[in-house]
Amino acid sequence: MTIRVTVWGENVHEQKNKVVAEVYPKAIHGTIAAALNADPNIQATTVTLQDIEHGLTAEKIAQTDVLIWWGHAAHGDVEDKIVERVTDAVWGGMGVIFLHSAHFSKPFKRLMGAPCNLTWREAGERERLWVTSRQHPIAQGLPDHFELETEEMYGEPFGVPEPLETVFISWFQGGEVFRSGLTYRRGAGNIFYFRPGHETYPTYHNSTVQQVISNAVKWAYNPQARIANPNDAPNTSIDIALEPLVERGARLHHDGEKGFR
Amino acid sequence: MTIRVTVWGENVHEQKNKVVAEVYPKAIHGTIAAALNADPNIQATTVTLQDIEHGLTAEKIAQTDVLIWWGHAAHGDVEDKIVERVTDAVWGGMGVIFLHSAHFSKPFKRLMGAPCNLTWREAGERERLWVTSRQHPIAQGLPDHFELETEEMYGEPFGVPEPLETVFISWFQGGEVFRSGLTYRRGAGNIFYFRPGHETYPTYHNSTVQQVISNAVKWAYNPQARIANPNDAPNTSIDIALEPLVERGARLHHDGEKGFR
Amino acid sequence: MTIRVTVWGENVHEQKNKVVAEVYPKAIHGTIAAALNADPNIQATTVTLQDIEHGLTAEKIAQTDVLIWWGHAAHGDVEDKIVERVTDAVWGGMGVIFLHSAHFSKPFKRLMGAPCNLTWREAGERERLWVTSRQHPIAQGLPDHFELETEEMYGEPFGVPEPLETVFISWFQGGEVFRSGLTYRRGAGNIFYFRPGHETYPTYHNSTVQQVISNAVKWAYNPQARIANPNDAPNTSIDIALEPLVERGARLHHDGEKGFR
Amino acid sequence: MTIRVTVWGENVHEQKNKVVAEVYPKAIHGTIAAALNADPNIQATTVTLQDIEHGLTAEKIAQTDVLIWWGHAAHGDVEDKIVERVTDAVWGGMGVIFLHSAHFSKPFKRLMGAPCNLTWREAGERERLWVTSRQHPIAQGLPDHFELETEEMYGEPFGVPEPLETVFISWFQGGEVFRSGLTYRRGAGNIFYFRPGHETYPTYHNSTVQQVISNAVKWAYNPQARIANPNDAPNTSIDIALEPLVERGARLHHDGEKGFR
Repeated sequence: MTIRVTVWGENVHEQKNKVVAEVYPKAIHGTIAAALNADPNIQATTVTLQDIEHGLTAEKIAQTDVLIWWGHAAHGDVEDKIVERVTDAVWGGMGVIFLHSAHFSKPFKRLMGAPCNLTWREAGERERLWVTSRQHPIAQGLPDHFELETEEMYGEPFGVPEPLETVFISWFQGGEVFRSGLTYRRGAGNIFYFRPGHETYPTYHNSTVQQVISNAVKWAYNPQARIANPNDAPNTSIDIALEPLVERGARLHHDGEKGFR
Repeated sequence: MTIRVTVWGENVHEQKNKVVAEVYPKAIHGTIAAALNADPNIQATTVTLQDIEHGLTAEKIAQTDVLIWWGHAAHGDVEDKIVERVTDAVWGGMGVIFLHSAHFSKPFKRLMGAPCNLTWREAGERERLWVTSRQHPIAQGLPDHFELETEEMYGEPFGVPEPLETVFISWFQGGEVFRSGLTYRRGAGNIFYFRPGHETYPTYHNSTVQQVISNAVKWAYNPQARIANPNDAPNTSIDIALEPLVERGARLHHDGEKGFR
Repeated sequence: MTIRVTVWGENVHEQKNKVVAEVYPKAIHGTIAAALNADPNIQATTVTLQDIEHGLTAEKIAQTDVLIWWGHAAHGDVEDKIVERVTDAVWGGMGVIFLHSAHFSKPFKRLMGAPCNLTWREAGERERLWVTSRQHPIAQGLPDHFELETEEMYGEPFGVPEPLETVFISWFQGGEVFRSGLTYRRGAGNIFYFRPGHETYPTYHNSTVQQVISNAVKWAYNPQARIANPNDAPNTSIDIALEPLVERGARLHHDGEKGFR
Repeated sequence: MTIRVTVWGENVHEQKNKVVAEVYPKAIHGTIAAALNADPNIQATTVTLQDIEHGLTAEKIAQTDVLIWWGHAAHGDVEDKIVERVTDAVWGGMGVIFLHSAHFSKPFKRLMGAPCNLTWREAGERERLWVTSRQHPIAQGLPDHFELETEEMYGEPFGVPEPLETVFISWFQGGEVFRSGLTYRRGAGNIFYFRPGHETYPTYHNSTVQQVISNAVKWAYNPQARIANPNDAPNTSIDIALEPLVERGARLHHDGEKGFR
């Protein structure tokens, strides 16, 4: 089993901001992909906002088992038709991991159906992540807590739906808390949100953070075939009903019709 | 306490289809509103797709505690800016009830972040709804099950996220099942999906169906003030941090900045 | 509508420990009940471990809409038959609020089906509770966060099932976090766990804490009739089947039998 | 990876009832184990109620990755100390699958904290199970629905907590529905309830049922080390606090104390 991961990077601050470029000479997406590729069961590649179709062509999506998304400064530049392609793929069974500021990315907001807002502070403060679900696959190999000495603060209330499971909660030096690891399922797709990763700090070089992302890839991976049309709403006509039926009342539709959308 | 309900009706088949017009001479929205107004604690009004801004002006939304949505043939005609106004209001605390074919309406799909698809058959078959959450407020006053002699079939798999609670599950004569009553919360807004109500059958004249909708209105009502800006993501600058902090590391933002979207 | 609340107090440390007696001259249960009785819609009484049947006779339970439970030093002294009476009542629709060290009480453990363990430290440190579900009924009237200057620390991982909703998360001065407000439903009963309230600190004199408990009482209250036998598993014999059936195969039971337990 | 499964069989009706003995000459537990052992990744053994410590010695539990439980006529004969051993193991990470009438078994009731009741009818009627969570690991390889021509009916309301996920819902010929596949997590243990399997019908010889149980074993398996003491509630004394603390206020406990239970 090899899990094919595509790491999507916005790739804006890495090109424009000197500090970010120094922290991430391979860019954020390159750093994450390199860490994942240390695992023989994962084959990670990268694409960016600047690529044709943001790198997420139909072919690329078809070859992606798990998509990782990092974006911050250019959420609005992502084309809606690509967002729709991504959400369709998730509904069909592609796993997806949203990192840090991707809480405001178009695909995350679409999949959550919620404001996804929070409070924030950029002060390089200490963040301590606590495992709230012991022996959860995404926390495999981790201690009960781990620290990131300098991170951006994200604070509650975090405007997301109740998750399936809360895996991590963060403590911040300045006095806030945040649900930092949350699992969801939409259609056949497993979704994980993971908080850390402000671009001016070396978070994605941290081995525990890398371990979490690697664990999440394996958790999110759905080995079953992608659902071809995850939006299909088939008419089951009377002649193929599983139990004997006699039609009654008036009809709006004829057999096999597609219905309204 | 009076709960202000706005019943949104698509009002297409009632105008174009003779059968529907005969079953619902007051239209579907009018029938539902009339039933709700029998309750002294509810004040229901109606608006339709054909009204200016589909009847959902900023003023009307501000005066709506719970919105009820019925649509089928013209989901695509609902303007995106109105959909956004509705979802913003839900996130801010407006309750919303989606009925039957509204599973494919724009606001429901936006709030679910999922395909919301299903299988269906229009044969006027028997539907029996079972209460799956005893003494749930939405099932108040109901027996363990009730029947609708002629209804459209909706079948699983229903492409929605796991709900907070499953309140009803339907049995269909032709052999299918469906999760017919589901609760969600998005932002501060309570959401209820209720399955029955194909327009060629007299479902909304059924007193038990009316009881469920009335119960759901009371359940969905959030008496607290609407959140003014449910998408706000305030910067909490260092000088107002709750615990003493010393800034470290590089910054992308300056104090009080709005951040990226 | 008057909600009848019974506050159950263990009443051990209030009698034995001088500090606790000074902080709570009316005992913890008395302090909580007095605060609740300031609300005209609530009628709170108290019972204690030392009362006959721990004060929870069948009559008292029948007259209790919402039970509040505070215990710490004597969980093991609560008789199993009383625990069973409490859980049966919860399943039948009685609301229940577990406070602080009641995480290890028998009825909470029975209702959770989980270890309910945590880490802890008694150092009189600062606790800051953050609202994680905006405009939730239990957070009504509260700011986004509030502080308790001296409290015992409870830390994650908290060994409870995923809740229906996480309403509060605590930040602790010493570096831990904790899910401090959690909602559950078991049978027809609404359950709320609320973390604060170590007996050597004046937590239950705090007006915001009192507000949360009062809100939780209203949230937990189920106005519907208590289910008489919440454990009933009735046999639905063939002659009363809702759809026509012909018996097939061998049987173990005869009609109307009680079945095995 | 080999998953060690222990199939626990009550083994009463197989010995006493002629019909059951004919349907299951290897007994129910033997039939299930044989089917699982066809999978090279699973190593299944069996134990029964009649074995010493019901076959669930500390050693056997330590060597069990996933426990499968079938019981019906003799729930009350299972010793409480064995039940406690089982629930402790689940909390520590052992997977567990409860089949059919095990809804009223002691360990299931303990883990659910709920009445677990339902309605039932023994008429050999048709059951059709619908997948409600597409591409869920437990439904891997299954069509959208499958049928069991003769089964006992279980009907809603099913007195269990809201699950993490609803995987199957059953349609019954006599007019009822039932949530037939439900996932839970308690502590580090994954729990699956699967409805079919009345002992007078050949359900466990059905290849789709066998596939579901095999899928569920893989889903429930937690490869991480079993938590040694899943009930531990360690005191985190001030001297090892993660952030600097100065003790304040009065104490009940001294450093490193075990606390109250």
